[in-house]
Amino acid sequence: MFRTVVRSHIRLAKHLQPSSLRTESQWLRTQCRAASTFDYKDPLQLRNLLEDEEIAIASTAKEYSQQKLLPRVLAAYRDENFDKSILKEMGEAGFLGATITGYGCAGVSDVAMGLITKEVERVDSGYRSALSVQSSLSMGAIHDFGTEELKEQFLPKMAKGTVVGCFGLTEPNHGSDPGSMETTARVDPNREGMYLLSGSKTWITNSPIADVLIVWAKLDGKIRGFLVERDRCPPGTLETPAIKNKTGLRASITGMIHMDNVPVPKEFMFPDVEGLRGPFACLNNARYGIAWGTMGALEDCIERAREYSLSRKQFKGNPLAKYQLIQKKLADAVTDATFGLLACVQVGRLKEQGLLVPEMISMIKRQNCDRSLAHARHLQEIFGGNAVADEYHIGRHVANLFVAQTYEGQSDIHSLILGRAITGVQAFC
Amino acid sequence: MFRTVVRSHIRLAKHLQPSSLRTESQWLRTQCRAASTFDYKDPLQLRNLLEDEEIAIASTAKEYSQQKLLPRVLAAYRDENFDKSILKEMGEAGFLGATITGYGCAGVSDVAMGLITKEVERVDSGYRSALSVQSSLSMGAIHDFGTEELKEQFLPKMAKGTVVGCFGLTEPNHGSDPGSMETTARVDPNREGMYLLSGSKTWITNSPIADVLIVWAKLDGKIRGFLVERDRCPPGTLETPAIKNKTGLRASITGMIHMDNVPVPKEFMFPDVEGLRGPFACLNNARYGIAWGTMGALEDCIERAREYSLSRKQFKGNPLAKYQLIQKKLADAVTDATFGLLACVQVGRLKEQGLLVPEMISMIKRQNCDRSLAHARHLQEIFGGNAVADEYHIGRHVANLFVAQTYEGQSDIHSLILGRAITGVQAFC
Amino acid sequence: MFRTVVRSHIRLAKHLQPSSLRTESQWLRTQCRAASTFDYKDPLQLRNLLEDEEIAIASTAKEYSQQKLLPRVLAAYRDENFDKSILKEMGEAGFLGATITGYGCAGVSDVAMGLITKEVERVDSGYRSALSVQSSLSMGAIHDFGTEELKEQFLPKMAKGTVVGCFGLTEPNHGSDPGSMETTARVDPNREGMYLLSGSKTWITNSPIADVLIVWAKLDGKIRGFLVERDRCPPGTLETPAIKNKTGLRASITGMIHMDNVPVPKEFMFPDVEGLRGPFACLNNARYGIAWGTMGALEDCIERAREYSLSRKQFKGNPLAKYQLIQKKLADAVTDATFGLLACVQVGRLKEQGLLVPEMISMIKRQNCDRSLAHARHLQEIFGGNAVADEYHIGRHVANLFVAQTYEGQSDIHSLILGRAITGVQAFC
Amino acid sequence: MFRTVVRSHIRLAKHLQPSSLRTESQWLRTQCRAASTFDYKDPLQLRNLLEDEEIAIASTAKEYSQQKLLPRVLAAYRDENFDKSILKEMGEAGFLGATITGYGCAGVSDVAMGLITKEVERVDSGYRSALSVQSSLSMGAIHDFGTEELKEQFLPKMAKGTVVGCFGLTEPNHGSDPGSMETTARVDPNREGMYLLSGSKTWITNSPIADVLIVWAKLDGKIRGFLVERDRCPPGTLETPAIKNKTGLRASITGMIHMDNVPVPKEFMFPDVEGLRGPFACLNNARYGIAWGTMGALEDCIERAREYSLSRKQFKGNPLAKYQLIQKKLADAVTDATFGLLACVQVGRLKEQGLLVPEMISMIKRQNCDRSLAHARHLQEIFGGNAVADEYHIGRHVANLFVAQTYEGQSDIHSLILGRAITGVQAFC
Repeated sequence: MFRTVVRSHIRLAKHLQPSSLRTESQWLRTQCRAASTFDYKDPLQLRNLLEDEEIAIASTAKEYSQQKLLPRVLAAYRDENFDKSILKEMGEAGFLGATITGYGCAGVSDVAMGLITKEVERVDSGYRSALSVQSSLSMGAIHDFGTEELKEQFLPKMAKGTVVGCFGLTEPNHGSDPGSMETTARVDPNREGMYLLSGSKTWITNSPIADVLIVWAKLDGKIRGFLVERDRCPPGTLETPAIKNKTGLRASITGMIHMDNVPVPKEFMFPDVEGLRGPFACLNNARYGIAWGTMGALEDCIERAREYSLSRKQFKGNPLAKYQLIQKKLADAVTDATFGLLACVQVGRLKEQGLLVPEMISMIKRQNCDRSLAHARHLQEIFGGNAVADEYHIGRHVANLFVAQTYEGQSDIHSLILGRAITGVQAFC
Repeated sequence: MFRTVVRSHIRLAKHLQPSSLRTESQWLRTQCRAASTFDYKDPLQLRNLLEDEEIAIASTAKEYSQQKLLPRVLAAYRDENFDKSILKEMGEAGFLGATITGYGCAGVSDVAMGLITKEVERVDSGYRSALSVQSSLSMGAIHDFGTEELKEQFLPKMAKGTVVGCFGLTEPNHGSDPGSMETTARVDPNREGMYLLSGSKTWITNSPIADVLIVWAKLDGKIRGFLVERDRCPPGTLETPAIKNKTGLRASITGMIHMDNVPVPKEFMFPDVEGLRGPFACLNNARYGIAWGTMGALEDCIERAREYSLSRKQFKGNPLAKYQLIQKKLADAVTDATFGLLACVQVGRLKEQGLLVPEMISMIKRQNCDRSLAHARHLQEIFGGNAVADEYHIGRHVANLFVAQTYEGQSDIHSLILGRAITGVQAFC
Repeated sequence: MFRTVVRSHIRLAKHLQPSSLRTESQWLRTQCRAASTFDYKDPLQLRNLLEDEEIAIASTAKEYSQQKLLPRVLAAYRDENFDKSILKEMGEAGFLGATITGYGCAGVSDVAMGLITKEVERVDSGYRSALSVQSSLSMGAIHDFGTEELKEQFLPKMAKGTVVGCFGLTEPNHGSDPGSMETTARVDPNREGMYLLSGSKTWITNSPIADVLIVWAKLDGKIRGFLVERDRCPPGTLETPAIKNKTGLRASITGMIHMDNVPVPKEFMFPDVEGLRGPFACLNNARYGIAWGTMGALEDCIERAREYSLSRKQFKGNPLAKYQLIQKKLADAVTDATFGLLACVQVGRLKEQGLLVPEMISMIKRQNCDRSLAHARHLQEIFGGNAVADEYHIGRHVANLFVAQTYEGQSDIHSLILGRAITGVQAFC
Repeated sequence: MFRTVVRSHIRLAKHLQPSSLRTESQWLRTQCRAASTFDYKDPLQLRNLLEDEEIAIASTAKEYSQQKLLPRVLAAYRDENFDKSILKEMGEAGFLGATITGYGCAGVSDVAMGLITKEVERVDSGYRSALSVQSSLSMGAIHDFGTEELKEQFLPKMAKGTVVGCFGLTEPNHGSDPGSMETTARVDPNREGMYLLSGSKTWITNSPIADVLIVWAKLDGKIRGFLVERDRCPPGTLETPAIKNKTGLRASITGMIHMDNVPVPKEFMFPDVEGLRGPFACLNNARYGIAWGTMGALEDCIERAREYSLSRKQFKGNPLAKYQLIQKKLADAVTDATFGLLACVQVGRLKEQGLLVPEMISMIKRQNCDRSLAHARHLQEIFGGNAVADEYHIGRHVANLFVAQTYEGQSDIHSLILGRAITGVQAFC
């Protein structure tokens, strides 16, 4: 139902208007000057940097998220339950693999994708994780590295959300350092044209419900990517137990992948990518989404904290909003939300133009995770004891944002990536 | 000219050891000098400030907590379940109302009580909450403000943990500002010698399981304290529903108190205390315990993070502990844990000597809550994605410590209490 | 000499290219992808947001500042000396009142003006102060509120830097609250058409060397603006002593203004502006410049700290740059410098389009001052003891940036301005 | 089961007072309870931990510092001038080498020495530096490592302040890593019993005015300590130029030491100490003093900021002290000042008992420098623009405390020393 507004071809963002319109619009805007006011939801008028279609997509994504996701998030978080039909709804709305052109995907701009991501994470980082894993990691890997056959076979169904993917890179003993992975692939000595995968992956979003698993493994010592179809796995070769009792991101399902000689046909190995370049390219896209998404979570925290501070009265009937220590927390959070979002738009535009370098994403992923987490925590203080009630939502955001800060590149790791880019010297060991 | 006051021979400062032992212990310690090493668990050798008995009590409390509480905390936290028998065990161990002399209580020093509190909170802030509410708030209120009859009737059973108390001050609309409470007491127009209590309290630790409820209510506009016995309440007058789905302190049970003309005999009103002086005196003792307790939680975070950083290898087989960014987090946490604990000892000694003023407790409650929360969060980063698994315990401490920071005086409120004490000017409105 | 590159009419910034160019440039840029690298001096490629002319103006401003200002700054700072000829050089280069169209001014975009400001403050905040006061405060006041006669009489000479202006608003007892000013204007009882000004202003940049003083005073209780010409003041009516022994901004000259019945002709009062609207409009422009300028100072700190960290070897011959704690400081600083600058560009574009609201400037002034100061201090630590030598420049930036944070709206004041805009509630008292 | 160890009657903790006084003082103090109030200058009543003589010594040191040092500090700081007679005054007052017994020294406790240090640094960190260098570094080195002849020859005159010492360890290329020093000693090939020292030292407090220079140099690759008498150096062998234009610590004189075959008699080499153990032992004592001293500077900042906030009125005549953002700054600073000082007392007592390990000093040196610097900066904001006037003293403290943080072990270095002590793993390279 939401699909209609998602445009099917790339158009460039308008920005600050083309020169031809300068004189009249200048005049017009000067006339409207009096009407220009400060809007805490968009203090630096970033909407001026967006195309009309991007604004429409964001609006659709917000409508969907608030109407369909928000009502179920509390129960899902309490019960650590992820409703698989959410992916189908997202597919129907055109959110899955949305930046891909063709294969049933929407083909929107990278900024539009960022805006979708932000609206989903405004509700819950777990829902955004599900979206990211399906779009950036799983579909992204197939699109960027798969053969044409693989793309045609899997992308359309994944775009609809009827086939669920996951992305197996991290291992129990190798979090920040995937290059040391222990999972291996070997040529099946008994069956021509088959590989056998063995090893374990952990902290894999959606692994327990995935139909398709992108698995990175070492073949002759070199990291290669494989597409594992769950249905094809003989009994006893593949297990994907869920990890329960998580302290955050509980509305998302997370699990392990245990492989004991999982057979994979040769055509299901990505042909032309070797080493960490492949998984890192996928992660890069996911991290781009996290940079946007966390700004959505932060905006939700701001809105809720602001509202609470206005409605809660203490000491002579003053609303909390009247207290300087409260106002400072709000001002700090709003500022970083705006600055962070602006950086997302800028990086999105560079991405659209092919000017992206990975360190740009390290920069916005790290900063936006760090700042959204820090501010969510400060804003949580505004709720006093009531923050402990999950109905106020802020505690859930705080717990989620810690995970966002730590996964797909823990904050310190990105500090060192940036440090290396700045100095030319590496400090990892 | 200034010289005269400068003494010309060495004299030892008089604290740290009794005079009688001075000479020999001095000699002994000098002999042991070579053996003196840095112990990250007690970097400034605070054990030197403790009596042997206090050390023994702390050791007992640690043994109990690690053996009896730790094994059940994960399940309790997951299920939001508090095992009422814990209070009986604590009673048996002598922990309940431990600073009270007589009435079956242990009569230990305030520092000893702090040490017990710390060991309990090393396992979980929720267990410490249960201990604090029983001891400082409920038994403390009865001991400090109750008649001799009330003390004799209730304290011995409460010391055993067979009668559970709770403390009803906070109301739904009045968190930081209890002076605006709406709960009222009025003379029962129908029964001689009885009051009727009506109103609601919220965020009351142990209210759903309490046998005895200390309730503060306004009688003719003045705040008075009442002891409500659950068993005596006619059906429909008292309800104490649990608050579920908390985002922290889940191993503690929290609830509301709804009163609709709860009858209380006149003898169950505290006779000589009026206004906020009564509840604040009790809260003060509880806050003193929080200052100690949070240091226990922080110490547990330090120990677990240290251990993890030594066992987890990343990048060329180096343990995380080898990374500067990790070491700084540990160094920062250990420093504030030590400084915070030292301040607890000092305030405890002042309390024992009757030299306490409430702002001292605002100072240590605020600082130790703020710092333990901040450091627990930093240390949590060391665990990377694994922090999300509750088996690592750190996520639980982080969630708990946020509650500790916000209850019994949110951090900002204590800032303003201190600010007022420093400047003589109040800034609450 | 630098003037030629400063364009004399407004052109719109290019930005992310107009749609018509999309296809080919898209192709072109995709081709260049491989060449795209991370540049710590412009990590998010903000140069893409600038017009060619703006880039040229920035380049000119940098060339001038590095060649002409940098060589004299150490001596100037040591001796608290401001070389008045600097304003003439800036005038010759077209920097003074550069956004004004006509009256001998360059008429550049607000973003171009920001870039000039940034390059000047890269050398020293004091030099930027001199530029800001002449341009935004003095010329700005005359341009926005003066009669056509005043503009024609003063702006051309001020644009050349041959007439120096200053801006007298702040008073000894009224820093953050100018509405309480005590300086008064009254009708001269003896001379027709004249006002008499009396009162004192303090912390007035350039007051000791100013030829023209914009003075705000209360006439019949309402704040009005006056232009005072030093040459016309009878002896004993005007004194502008310098304030010496400053702890920062020592390359800028600061003073007081003492007025004892200074006569001002009626035509030298701004006719149509009353209350704080007038001075606040001027301050707003100056604050816009500070937001840009501090990013220049921060960039200089980054560059110097990076260079030092690469050249300084400690422990087994490793450069400091190899240490994680050093890299984190650099990564943090570079990130905020980029985010802050991006926000400046955005606000500049909004300003050019007449979409500015003052709170936007509170946001970027506050954040960029706070962050540049914090990071300059962190980067200073990289220099160890050598930071104390003024030849390393970092200590000077740190001292200057504290002043930038506190003047023209102390950081906390802007927090409360933002807090009021966010909540609709004011918390100033 | 745990009950047995819990004592059943109240006993007072043994510290804070000698046993003999226990009963009566207890009684007395209980009587005084009503009088106990919060004193922002000593919020946790640390004076209770001090002997009467220590309190008297502190009082004398305060009197001297406020009467004799404070009046000259502004001029000294402006002119980068150190009045050598200050050392004579300090000598007369018994402050120099005060913990040494004999040799004309006062023989006070380590805590008493800390209190003296604190009072001197309350005026200026530079004056404390002069005191530290004379006492801990120069006299301390001679006392701990010199022969009896050296002690008798030099200590009495140095205790009087008539002979000035300095301590040459740091070299231009080796700040945090003195083990890589390049200064060498070699046997004089021409004169029996003489060594020749060559090399350069930098950032040496008092080197330009020193009569006696403790110099650490490598003899056959091993670090040894030498006492150089300026008067005995042939022309051209020793130069000690002052370093001017410092950005902090300007009331202290700092210089270099250039040695070109400086002859030193064999008896002037410390006989029994080799490697870094010697200089580190001296530095340790100096760092102990810095931990105390910075608390004095912070206390002065607090007192001045508090006073300013009470006297400065803004917005409807309210004093700044009424604003929450101001009160929080004060509360934060007062808390860390108290905690920091308490840790100093504790470490001092351990030092007196021979229980010190160097990491304890790393802990208090680092924390107290970091916190005093951070708080001084926050408090500086309270002064607004007026902070720039050196008459308010706060800018000077801020600049000084940065130096304190960076010298004698930059903060990060102490973090890594602590990290190593905590984890057992070193992270320096």
